[in-house]
Amino acid sequence: MLRIAVLGCGRIGQMHAANVARHPRAKLATVYDVHAPSAERVAAAQGVTAAANPEAVFASPDVDAVLIATATPTHADYIEMAVAAGKAVLCEKPIDLNLARVNACAARIAGTSVPIQLGFNRRYDPGHSAARAALLAGDIGDLHQVIITSRDPALPPRAYLEAAGGLFRDMTIHDFDLARFMLGEEPTEVFALGNALIDPGLGAELNEVDSAMFILRTASGKQCHINNSRTAVYGYDQRVELMGTTGMVISDNRKPNELRRYSAMQTEAAAPYQFFFLERYHEAFMAEIDGFVDCVEKGATPLASFEDGRRALILAEAAYLSMREGRMVKVSEVTA
Amino acid sequence: MLRIAVLGCGRIGQMHAANVARHPRAKLATVYDVHAPSAERVAAAQGVTAAANPEAVFASPDVDAVLIATATPTHADYIEMAVAAGKAVLCEKPIDLNLARVNACAARIAGTSVPIQLGFNRRYDPGHSAARAALLAGDIGDLHQVIITSRDPALPPRAYLEAAGGLFRDMTIHDFDLARFMLGEEPTEVFALGNALIDPGLGAELNEVDSAMFILRTASGKQCHINNSRTAVYGYDQRVELMGTTGMVISDNRKPNELRRYSAMQTEAAAPYQFFFLERYHEAFMAEIDGFVDCVEKGATPLASFEDGRRALILAEAAYLSMREGRMVKVSEVTA
Amino acid sequence: MLRIAVLGCGRIGQMHAANVARHPRAKLATVYDVHAPSAERVAAAQGVTAAANPEAVFASPDVDAVLIATATPTHADYIEMAVAAGKAVLCEKPIDLNLARVNACAARIAGTSVPIQLGFNRRYDPGHSAARAALLAGDIGDLHQVIITSRDPALPPRAYLEAAGGLFRDMTIHDFDLARFMLGEEPTEVFALGNALIDPGLGAELNEVDSAMFILRTASGKQCHINNSRTAVYGYDQRVELMGTTGMVISDNRKPNELRRYSAMQTEAAAPYQFFFLERYHEAFMAEIDGFVDCVEKGATPLASFEDGRRALILAEAAYLSMREGRMVKVSEVTA
Amino acid sequence: MLRIAVLGCGRIGQMHAANVARHPRAKLATVYDVHAPSAERVAAAQGVTAAANPEAVFASPDVDAVLIATATPTHADYIEMAVAAGKAVLCEKPIDLNLARVNACAARIAGTSVPIQLGFNRRYDPGHSAARAALLAGDIGDLHQVIITSRDPALPPRAYLEAAGGLFRDMTIHDFDLARFMLGEEPTEVFALGNALIDPGLGAELNEVDSAMFILRTASGKQCHINNSRTAVYGYDQRVELMGTTGMVISDNRKPNELRRYSAMQTEAAAPYQFFFLERYHEAFMAEIDGFVDCVEKGATPLASFEDGRRALILAEAAYLSMREGRMVKVSEVTA
Repeated sequence: MLRIAVLGCGRIGQMHAANVARHPRAKLATVYDVHAPSAERVAAAQGVTAAANPEAVFASPDVDAVLIATATPTHADYIEMAVAAGKAVLCEKPIDLNLARVNACAARIAGTSVPIQLGFNRRYDPGHSAARAALLAGDIGDLHQVIITSRDPALPPRAYLEAAGGLFRDMTIHDFDLARFMLGEEPTEVFALGNALIDPGLGAELNEVDSAMFILRTASGKQCHINNSRTAVYGYDQRVELMGTTGMVISDNRKPNELRRYSAMQTEAAAPYQFFFLERYHEAFMAEIDGFVDCVEKGATPLASFEDGRRALILAEAAYLSMREGRMVKVSEVTA
Repeated sequence: MLRIAVLGCGRIGQMHAANVARHPRAKLATVYDVHAPSAERVAAAQGVTAAANPEAVFASPDVDAVLIATATPTHADYIEMAVAAGKAVLCEKPIDLNLARVNACAARIAGTSVPIQLGFNRRYDPGHSAARAALLAGDIGDLHQVIITSRDPALPPRAYLEAAGGLFRDMTIHDFDLARFMLGEEPTEVFALGNALIDPGLGAELNEVDSAMFILRTASGKQCHINNSRTAVYGYDQRVELMGTTGMVISDNRKPNELRRYSAMQTEAAAPYQFFFLERYHEAFMAEIDGFVDCVEKGATPLASFEDGRRALILAEAAYLSMREGRMVKVSEVTA
Repeated sequence: MLRIAVLGCGRIGQMHAANVARHPRAKLATVYDVHAPSAERVAAAQGVTAAANPEAVFASPDVDAVLIATATPTHADYIEMAVAAGKAVLCEKPIDLNLARVNACAARIAGTSVPIQLGFNRRYDPGHSAARAALLAGDIGDLHQVIITSRDPALPPRAYLEAAGGLFRDMTIHDFDLARFMLGEEPTEVFALGNALIDPGLGAELNEVDSAMFILRTASGKQCHINNSRTAVYGYDQRVELMGTTGMVISDNRKPNELRRYSAMQTEAAAPYQFFFLERYHEAFMAEIDGFVDCVEKGATPLASFEDGRRALILAEAAYLSMREGRMVKVSEVTA
Repeated sequence: MLRIAVLGCGRIGQMHAANVARHPRAKLATVYDVHAPSAERVAAAQGVTAAANPEAVFASPDVDAVLIATATPTHADYIEMAVAAGKAVLCEKPIDLNLARVNACAARIAGTSVPIQLGFNRRYDPGHSAARAALLAGDIGDLHQVIITSRDPALPPRAYLEAAGGLFRDMTIHDFDLARFMLGEEPTEVFALGNALIDPGLGAELNEVDSAMFILRTASGKQCHINNSRTAVYGYDQRVELMGTTGMVISDNRKPNELRRYSAMQTEAAAPYQFFFLERYHEAFMAEIDGFVDCVEKGATPLASFEDGRRALILAEAAYLSMREGRMVKVSEVTA
């Protein structure tokens, strides 16, 4: 049983704490939050003792690993502290909103043997995984086109948006990662376009967009389209399509159950899709912990690495440059 | 081009006349109806001359074949007249509501070389055909169970029901035929149960049922369930399921188009199914004419024969006996 | 946290022990099995101490409730012992293979205030539950027909079949219960038919069937069809269809993921259905424990009661009588 | 009955001739092809007399309208001749591969009262029509994103590609039109990217692409993605998705029948999609003629006009400019 401490007791930290506590191969060691009462509440619910500060967590001999689910600006610091303390790391995305900070972190932890896994949960989704497995098995021949549809169920509150670092770094970053995961080679060019269609105020006041479309291309010519919307009233819309020379696979949306309704007005009507990532990706989050335990206990390579986190952020940077200049941007322009 | 005369200009006769007129391998020779103005109207619409009486049709050198779509009590007479005149026959089901009359007709036409095809249109449906083809190709191994769901969109008017000869002879007869077509061997036992659930008055006043369930079994133990309802508000419900040792095939309902709707209340909602047999089985009715032309011009064996019509009626008789006595009935009981 | 002891550490007992251990509102108190090493193994895996005998379980002050997953012949005894000890009971189906024994047990526990819940897990399935909720909400109007398809993925070993008490008591009993749950009124008539189609040896040697079809009818005329097969190569096939005057709902099969495959040979191909009840009904088994905790802690009425277990067995008895005599059997014939 | 002459007896001309001949509101007047034997063959098959030259067609008092299905370079000429002769026109796309020629034609026919309809058949497809109807009815609120997937089943022969004018003018032109039809306002910006992935030789030898992705945007910010491939082994892939503030509609692919296959390897597998436009858009082509008859006989406005043909070509021009320069192009750049 891997003893994992969860740092951060917000929405996603609470979920991780419960998942770790219930995972057959993991044990919740402790929890910490900058807001002590939050940590206390989660600790009580899971039957553990909250840690007073991060230092105590990193120093504890009863902690094998940390799951970082705190506010984004602390991620890189905690990764560095964890590596220094020899604690394995599972860190929520993004590593940081600032690429320079990510690069500095990368330099500081270079060469460490401490396992570091990024929280790109979608890589662990049964449907998305099966799509990639089919590709790797040669079931669709050579991959030509990837289509990723990724729409959140509802626009988050303004306060969240102000801190999130922009749609491309907060939301699309998952899709950039998924694109890389599926394409099997680095995108070398990015085109991006965004608008504030759901809440036009976002554009005027935050310089933010809520609806976006992207095209990525790899050096060998593989093409990828991503579309994003902050609101999909029919539920969290998460689809991946891989089109190749001998076939296609689609990882479609998951419904809460398989009920179909028939009436004088319609047939085969299903329920709205699972509301959001907590429901939709529950199995993925559990599998992510499973993969993390394998990394620590068996020395497995993380399916999503620190470098994957850095690469996804680079694509977000390139996308912002593309949107500003209305042109295809070479990824090398933002890494040079 | 096979020159076909259509006898009967009611709902289904009108459809057949239009289908024949538009069929690439057939030509509408003439039409007849006991109600002359009906025949005149259809003749005008299709650009042909109506026949004054059936005798004129059977005597005409410009008629190669007749499609009998008149009232059921005339079917057997017209079949006999057509055979005597050497005109090929495509006759709507049922041959007659009375098994003795059917047997007499069979005796009179015994040995004829005139092609006779029964109007069991469902045998020609692309989906149902593909299901049987999969079975015959060995795709599902040995057949064990057949499930036929057959529900009409809306209860017909009382006048129709009074003349129809009862649910089993009027509606289930198609399903009995489909069961035989799919089972590939004769059902030897029948169990039937019916109720007047949609219109309880039917039971009291017409001794009729509007909802029914059946179980058939063949000598080798193959099992078949049929369910019927006179009303399905979501559209004409026509499904066939074949379950075998190495697989299953389902011929599912056809929708008018492939639109799917998504809202805050539901996802993947399709339109109601095609309203009734005119829409749902349009391709089947056209293929039925195609098959008929093959029978006449190439000497092909009819996919649905006179004997198939007789056998389906026998199953209806056995089903009525079963319903009356509340027991499994051997088919041999009604043929002895 | 309800402290539950699990009696029986076979396949389903192991599953229940793991589910209880991981359930947010329950705690695994102890486990017992007549084969001590089995109990030790499960106890070790879940971090509890195995009980030496059932008496110790019933006497323990650290046990609030028992989950009976032992061999069927012990169920009624353990229910009686649990009631005597004041321990709440969640008992796997069937209560007993012998109706007289069930009736005797019913008499002995009559009037008890100890909560007793039957393990009819399908009542807790999200899809089936949603179907019933739609019916109760009036979404389909008056219910007319119920179709239950229930096919196991693979024929169990001969040894299992010899002890199972026959298809109707072992497998169909779930479907009889589901039929009652959905119909909302008691079936008063039963027709059954079975064959040994998958393994003809079953018929000759065990007087057993592996493929069966049923028709049930209630006093008001509601009709229900059930079909069973011991083998469905495409996975555990579990469907429920409710057809009413203003609509229909279908609780369809659940797939392991939402991947669809497209090739030159086919489109929209999904994975085989979830293999068996452990996978298919995982959510249902967890919800079943949730419901049980509600019964004990909040005095809720069990969704599946002892009487439901008895009624399902009565339907199995009526079905056997029907199959033997080839006729519709009144349920009152076997209860008189 | 509208008397229509079909000019051009290639693959699509033959189809149109057969459709006109079988259409309940139209009559095939004559056919013409530059290759006389082709015209003779089609004329014989449809029971009409072939015209010796186009002039005879335009001069004939027995011709009410012409359907232009000849080689693209003749379209504009025949449109002008038809207008001069007062014959209504249904012209296959594109009007011409050269925008200047289209503009010249527009100038010459300006102000005519002769009905001119463009052959954008997809506007008449039942599924796509229903999607637009849902949008216009307000079922999905304000439209934000349109996704068009359009993939041909197989790469056409090199000779076809050499004459076709390039992927964007030959194939995407349908999607540009569909985008305009669905968006309800003009796209003002276009981004395009293409590669020769299926046949890399196309790029080197013809400067042609076979795989492409596009993003379009309207003045109000509505976003549209189109993806194209010249090869989809699973059949002609034709999907349209409209995402709005209160819902989404998807016009999905049509299958040849509704058979679903289940085996130990897969479930719910359907047949490959309908092979190509002749099958997939048969209903649309018939509805297109219906709409044309309405234009001529009732003075209805064509659903697809000459100007729609010109606008689609402008988008193709803008897309080529975008692909060459790797940037978002304003549509006004190519019209100025």
